[in-house]
Amino acid sequence: MTGLDVTASGHEKLRIDVTIAASSTAHADEIVEGLSGIEGVVLGKVSDRTFLMHLGGKIEMASKHPIRNRDDLSMVYTPGVARVCMAIAENPEDARRLTIKRNSVAVVTDGSAVLGLGNIGPKAALPVMEGKAALFKRFAGIDAWPICLDTQDTDAIVEIVKAIAPGFAGINLEDISAPRCFEIEARLREALDIPVFHDDQHGTAIVVLAALTNALRVVGKSVSDVRVVMSGAGAAGTAILKLLIAAGVKHAVVADIHGVVHAGREDLVHATPDSPLRWIADNTNPEGVTGTLREAVVGADVFIGVSAPNLLGADDVAAMAEDAVVFALANPDPEVDPAIARRTAAVVATGRSDFPNQINNVLVFPGVFRGLLDATSRTVSTEMMLAAASALANVVTDDELNPNYIIPSVFNDKVAGAVAGAVREAAKAAGASVTTPTPA
Amino acid sequence: MTGLDVTASGHEKLRIDVTIAASSTAHADEIVEGLSGIEGVVLGKVSDRTFLMHLGGKIEMASKHPIRNRDDLSMVYTPGVARVCMAIAENPEDARRLTIKRNSVAVVTDGSAVLGLGNIGPKAALPVMEGKAALFKRFAGIDAWPICLDTQDTDAIVEIVKAIAPGFAGINLEDISAPRCFEIEARLREALDIPVFHDDQHGTAIVVLAALTNALRVVGKSVSDVRVVMSGAGAAGTAILKLLIAAGVKHAVVADIHGVVHAGREDLVHATPDSPLRWIADNTNPEGVTGTLREAVVGADVFIGVSAPNLLGADDVAAMAEDAVVFALANPDPEVDPAIARRTAAVVATGRSDFPNQINNVLVFPGVFRGLLDATSRTVSTEMMLAAASALANVVTDDELNPNYIIPSVFNDKVAGAVAGAVREAAKAAGASVTTPTPA
Repeated sequence: MTGLDVTASGHEKLRIDVTIAASSTAHADEIVEGLSGIEGVVLGKVSDRTFLMHLGGKIEMASKHPIRNRDDLSMVYTPGVARVCMAIAENPEDARRLTIKRNSVAVVTDGSAVLGLGNIGPKAALPVMEGKAALFKRFAGIDAWPICLDTQDTDAIVEIVKAIAPGFAGINLEDISAPRCFEIEARLREALDIPVFHDDQHGTAIVVLAALTNALRVVGKSVSDVRVVMSGAGAAGTAILKLLIAAGVKHAVVADIHGVVHAGREDLVHATPDSPLRWIADNTNPEGVTGTLREAVVGADVFIGVSAPNLLGADDVAAMAEDAVVFALANPDPEVDPAIARRTAAVVATGRSDFPNQINNVLVFPGVFRGLLDATSRTVSTEMMLAAASALANVVTDDELNPNYIIPSVFNDKVAGAVAGAVREAAKAAGASVTTPTPA
Repeated sequence: MTGLDVTASGHEKLRIDVTIAASSTAHADEIVEGLSGIEGVVLGKVSDRTFLMHLGGKIEMASKHPIRNRDDLSMVYTPGVARVCMAIAENPEDARRLTIKRNSVAVVTDGSAVLGLGNIGPKAALPVMEGKAALFKRFAGIDAWPICLDTQDTDAIVEIVKAIAPGFAGINLEDISAPRCFEIEARLREALDIPVFHDDQHGTAIVVLAALTNALRVVGKSVSDVRVVMSGAGAAGTAILKLLIAAGVKHAVVADIHGVVHAGREDLVHATPDSPLRWIADNTNPEGVTGTLREAVVGADVFIGVSAPNLLGADDVAAMAEDAVVFALANPDPEVDPAIARRTAAVVATGRSDFPNQINNVLVFPGVFRGLLDATSRTVSTEMMLAAASALANVVTDDELNPNYIIPSVFNDKVAGAVAGAVREAAKAAGASVTTPTPA
């Protein structure tokens, strides 16, 4: 107990606010149960710091200019605003200069794949989306707003995002389940003149590539030589694989819940030509390795897991090549215990915040969008993503690089700027920018 | 010229920033033309206060909590946020307590009827919507976000707004042209459990009713006795008429572009049963007055115009009843010159900011939504609107009331609270509130 306040008093009763530091939510529950059992005590409200912080939401809208008097009002609203509207009506690209379209990103979800919680729907997804928006602002100064959709229909989602696009400079798709997320992103990229980026796919891919780049610097291996074994062929797995191959990985094998993906596998007969599984079968495992994940990791240089907990044990990691790199990213429990992996692997990373080398998308999406917005880019391309990964990796200097520091902390203040700068330059070089708006 | 700054200098050139106070945009244009004609002068950027204020947009998103370190991050985002998501997944009403759904309103437009500018589309509408959002925050502390839609299809708009509703506590429809606005609002009210309010209709109606209430106090007439003639049967006109009738107006006649609306008029044969025109014909003008607007206003106690400029002259106003009330609200040029009307009418009001008695929706929509949100109301009803109008009217005390002060200034700090309180109480009385969320 760290605090006791008597907040009301009567002849026969006291109302007491008790502040307690508990070691976990389970511990807190025990304490609450214990308190409610005390005779003569009526337990009122129970709250904790996290819930208190969420009351009324974590974000707000703010006006950039005070509205103190008629003069202010006449510029911010009628009649002065009308001239600004007409300027944009005459030159729509001026929206990117004269409105929030300079700096806004919609964080769009249908709540179908939220964190490790699954399909909890749009309202329950809102705290995550608010948090995402808060991170966009904190790390990149981007004004992001959550849009939580009450539909999971692919066609509907595509039409809705197309319709809301005018007020935004970019779309961040979030927590939309596979395989719908692939089609939704592809169709929106086709339809819109602003970048569309599913962070669960590409944010993860970029940070994994950056971490792998540095891990290979540590162990002195080259990206085109290493044998990479991946576990998981969902949204993140597919995107990571594609980016690794674009970065030069030549020897990749992917295992999903049915084992190693190879050209002759039975279920591929049913896979549609444009399905992720088909792509994986066509672009990995030319030797036709078959069998289980555990069999595939024998002698592998790199293991990347974006799948499920407890798939590998000490022996499996020990059977990998010398100076193995293990990224066990399943959330909340990784594919292998990182402490166990660290006994034999040279470099180990997870998505967890309580181990070194946290693979965290927060290192990527703010800087990526900052760069895209500053370049007024219409798209986001593989080149831009490779540039982002490279910039992120290079934030870690040679002097700093070691097996327990292959990726910067999310609070490293060089990260967002480095990533943004690289993406901005890549976007400009790609000529993906819109026509320059009329000068002010 | 109020300022001159030499901002760069070379051997043969100076770069000079000149600040000039011009009396109008036309004057400013003359000055610019004059400057560009001077030999040896190259004119660079020309800007003005209003445009400068709009650079990069007028609103932003702000995080309510600093994210300084891992501890903050773990509450605002993963892993702490997951518990909040699960709480909402178990009790969806908790979204109104634990997320921005406590305090957020979507300002939705398709850009089809923006101010007096017409169908300028979603991007060009954005400055107005940003301004609207800024006013929501300034006057009622509401976090409003603009949603500018790239479609004008009624069915699509209804589906889109239904889909984005989970993150909002209310929907403010704005600048959507008649007659689609009626159907869109009606269908959304049917479908959603949050209030939907087309401000161009009902915000205008509420402020007109409040102003009329006070104007009748000034001239000592009763609402059920007065003969009211309205010009304009569009979105605002129809909504004003309905609210006036709900408030007790018994003798109303409406004129549109074809003259006075009466049961026998030819075009009514083609009007659908649920069209506004049909409603007006069925609910006004029982005596079957026919003819033009100018003929109809003879002997009328009240004229309310929401139509077009220059429809009435000095003689028309003089031909009204004694102690006439004239609300000429066409924007930017009213139906009659207010200075001319004031010669014979007892009370004159316009929508303009350069005459007394400005009929301005800013007096209404912030307080109305504040009340609806605080009551967690699912709907907005006629009773709530009448309560809002009454509260607004009563901000003007008997001591303050006079022909040039029938409505408070938008900067009167009693307004929003008075309107919000009345709407909140009316909503609670209506039992329109949602189930009380689980106590904190």
